[in-house]
Order: sequence, then structure tokens, then C-alpha cells
Amino acid sequence: LRVSGDSGSAFSLSLCLSLSLSLSQIVLSAFQQQKEVMLKSSPADLVTETDQRVEKILISAIRDKYPQHKFIGEESVAAGERLELSDSPTWIIDPIDGTVNFVHRFPFVAISIAFAVNKQTEFGIVYSCVEDKLYCAQRGGGAFLNGEPLHASGQEDISRCLVVTEIGAERDDLALSTMTSNIFRLLKLPVHGVRALGTAAVDMCQVATGGADAYYHIGMHCWDIAASALIVQEAGGVVMDTDGSQFDMMSRKVIAASSSAVANRIAQVVQAFPCRRDDEDPSKSLCGAASN
Amino acid sequence: LRVSGDSGSAFSLSLCLSLSLSLSQIVLSAFQQQKEVMLKSSPADLVTETDQRVEKILISAIRDKYPQHKFIGEESVAAGERLELSDSPTWIIDPIDGTVNFVHRFPFVAISIAFAVNKQTEFGIVYSCVEDKLYCAQRGGGAFLNGEPLHASGQEDISRCLVVTEIGAERDDLALSTMTSNIFRLLKLPVHGVRALGTAAVDMCQVATGGADAYYHIGMHCWDIAASALIVQEAGGVVMDTDGSQFDMMSRKVIAASSSAVANRIAQVVQAFPCRRDDEDPSKSLCGAASN
Repeated sequence: LRVSGDSGSAFSLSLCLSLSLSLSQIVLSAFQQQKEVMLKSSPADLVTETDQRVEKILISAIRDKYPQHKFIGEESVAAGERLELSDSPTWIIDPIDGTVNFVHRFPFVAISIAFAVNKQTEFGIVYSCVEDKLYCAQRGGGAFLNGEPLHASGQEDISRCLVVTEIGAERDDLALSTMTSNIFRLLKLPVHGVRALGTAAVDMCQVATGGADAYYHIGMHCWDIAASALIVQEAGGVVMDTDGSQFDMMSRKVIAASSSAVANRIAQVVQAFPCRRDDEDPSKSLCGAASN
Repeated sequence: LRVSGDSGSAFSLSLCLSLSLSLSQIVLSAFQQQKEVMLKSSPADLVTETDQRVEKILISAIRDKYPQHKFIGEESVAAGERLELSDSPTWIIDPIDGTVNFVHRFPFVAISIAFAVNKQTEFGIVYSCVEDKLYCAQRGGGAFLNGEPLHASGQEDISRCLVVTEIGAERDDLALSTMTSNIFRLLKLPVHGVRALGTAAVDMCQVATGGADAYYHIGMHCWDIAASALIVQEAGGVVMDTDGSQFDMMSRKVIAASSSAVANRIAQVVQAFPCRRDDEDPSKSLCGAASN
């Protein structure tokens, strides 16, 4: 990995790489076991003891080195911590992206870690543990998979695109019918096909490899895509909101694509359903989909 | 691999394993290159020179040893050969299952080979080349992944199932709306999630590993699933038609599941669209979906 920028950032990236490699041992060893599964927001929103354990170890190890830094972790937020991205140095962590896969032993699960300062992601890593694929990027320094540089496909013709998406854990009629209509309309364009591996982080990294030309998702959270958004950008891809506006990791809507042309075409076709912003006060009403 | 049965069958299985491992070198080397792509039945039904080349080498090597055997190969059929499964020893071959993935370098492509006598599959292999995962089964002898025995999950509760499917290459409104409605209804049951890797053969093998609990597909062809159907059965899974009747590899409709309970539940939910049987005279009218 080429590391540019200040040595502090290089140090924290190294820390993050070594932590994810060592924590993957916990993930892989639990992957083979029967798991006790707890439900969160829906019958498809699962969490296991391993998600919580990996997040605690990660945060505690990083806090040891950087006691002033802030953290946004999937399981800490689920446990009631307020989610706020400030200008302070902040670590955005998904201990296991693809928990449903993890529970089933479907072989795509990832540790995702991003580090942001002034709300800008400085580096991101996605470690797909079972595949042993380590994706990583540092702002301005390119994107890499197991040390090899990554390049998005550059495809500009939507009708030649392979598209990845996820339906996620929402099970209400509006969310599901929006999701399935989006797939219908994309296939009618036509596109070459639609794929879903079950982890937003790994799905999105497929755009960085050039293996897929686009990824879109409505309803995911910032920890699912903070790292992979930078990986796509550093591989030469484009990241935006599904309404065509600038990427906002808190909006719960994202398109990652091989080119602006493809990203904009998907923004025209894909509709969103209402879901609360990640940083919205939970006592307020729903927003997020009105504009698209 | 444990090999049971007569030595002729053991010999032909060995031949088939060694051919698929050596032909994977051609697939992997072409995987990295730019490919010249030709269209078949739709803008999403692709073929490359590599599909045709691998099939020719496979058939010619097997015919050398077994000059009396018959062949059903995806690309030979596309080139106009009549498709008929008789009682004669017959090799059913997909040189590259996941051609769209192959064209895009999305890392799931498989060589699928099944061998049938009296219309019964004697052995099947699916080699997922990029992943280096060799699935294989012999009738009565169990199923294996890289030499390790496979076991379906045994899950009986649909609401705890991870389901894999493919939308395939059809792009007409009826096919697409049937496919997306099937996904909608399954998610409403609910199921834990829906995944799609882009190759029927590899998707279906996920049921054999226990990593997924069910797979269903309408519109695929016999060469996509002949080998993996036996792999699922030998791993303790269940294979049937989407209308709940007995599995018929020519019907272009399949459910593979962890248990009869799950297979039957999916058969109740999933609807088919009309598509011509693989062994139907092309001059006759459409059939195949009327019963479901």
C-alpha cells in the first residue's frame, strides 16, 4: 500500500489494517459455529455476540492510541449511542457488514472501517474475511485490493452495465415495492444483470475492481458504505446520492458507479422510499425520500 | 473424493475432474482480458469465443474416450444442435456458467459438467474457477467441496431462510414482473434475504454448502443446473420443480432447498412465466408455465 499524507494518518491506517486482520480471526472462527441471533429493527435485521465483541475490541484498541477521537459504530448506535458526524477525527465502524450472511455462513462478510476528519474520509478499509480480500484506500493515494491497484471500469453505457444492489432488512410494502420496481426498471433499460452478495461494503468494492459497473442502495447506514465510498472514488469511480445530488454518507442513499454518465442514469431510474437520516433526531419525523 | 459404483463411472468422473481443472486455466487467463462479446437471445444473453472454445475442447476430449456417448452443450445447442436427453450415456455441459460475470470480470464463473445414464445423473461437477472451489457429487456417494463433505442446512422454517435466485437474461415485461413479484412475495413471508451471484450452478451449490437455504430459478437451461442438482441432493437437500412436481431438468424451472418443507413453501409462493422446455420442438408453441 502506498501511504501518502502525514505520518499520523499513516500510523492510524496501519493500526486499522493490523486490527482488521487480527479481528478477522474472531470473525472466521465464529463463522463456522452455530450462533445465537438477536433481532434489531426487523426480522431480517440481525445481530450476534460476535458483531458486538468485534466492535468493542476495535473501539477500545483505537481509543487506547487516540483517546480524543470519536466513534460511530453500528452496534454502539444500536445500543443507544447518539450518531453524529462532527469535524472531530471520527472512526466509522461496521464490525461485521453482512450479518445475515454471517449467521447463515454465506461466505461474504466484511469488517469495514473509515476514518474521517472535518467530515471528509481520510482512509477506508473493507476486509472481506472469508474471501481474504483486503480492500483499502487513502484519500489521494489510490485504492488497492491485497496490494494491487484498483480501477473502476470506466463504462459509460448503461445498457452494458452489471449492477449490484441490496434490498436490505426493510420488510414494509412501500420499501419492498420501491426496491423491486427499481430492479424491474433497471433491467428494462436494459442492464446486463443485477447481483447481490449480501454486504453493502463488499458489493460496493466490486465497482472499485471494475467487476461491476454500478451499485446503488437505499436504506443502508453510514458504517456500511463510508469506507467503500472512498475506495470507489480512489479507484476512479463516482459516488453520489440516489437523487443525483452530492454524496452524503448520512442520507442512507447511495450510487457508486464507473462513470458520471452511469451514475446519473441510475439516479434517473431509481426511486427512494422514506427513511430517517442517520444523523436525524429520532424524535423527529421521517425524511430522505421526498426529493426522489 | 469417495468414488462408488462401477469403475467406468469412476474413470469418467476422474476424466471430468481433470478436464475441468485444466480448462479452468483457459477460463482464468481469458477472464483478465478484454473479450469480444456476441449476443444470443437477448441483450443480456452473451457468449464469448472462450465459451465456445472450452466446450469444443471438453467434448472432443470426452468423445476421444467415449465415442458412443452423447452430448448436450450450451454452445452446441446455441449453434443449432438438437437438444434431446435419451437413455444413452449423455454429458451435459456448460463451459462457462455465468458468462455475463465472465465478460465483466465479476468473480463467479463455473465450468459445469454432468453425466447422465437412463436420464439419471450419475455424477456432476461444478468448478467455480476464480474462487478455486470444486464442487462435486456422485450418485449415492455424497457431495464435496474441495474434498470436504457438504451438508445442506436442514432448515425447515421459511422465515429463517436465506434464498438465492437469478433473474436471468429475459427482458420482456411478463418475465421481469413475474421475477420481481416473486422476490417481493418471498421477502414479505419474510425470508432473511435474497442473494444473486450471477451463476445458477454456483448459486445452487450454496444450498449444498448450507450457506443458503434455498435457490429457485425460472428460465435457466438444463446445462446450468444438471450437475448442481445432484450436488444439492447428495448434500441432503431437496430438488423439485417450481410447480411442486418432481424435478425435471428439461422443464426450465427448479427449486433447490434445505428441506421439503422449505421447497414446498417456495413452490406455493413462486410463479413461473411461459418458457419453452429445453427438449421441446422449437416449431411448437410455448408451454411450461401453465400449471403454475
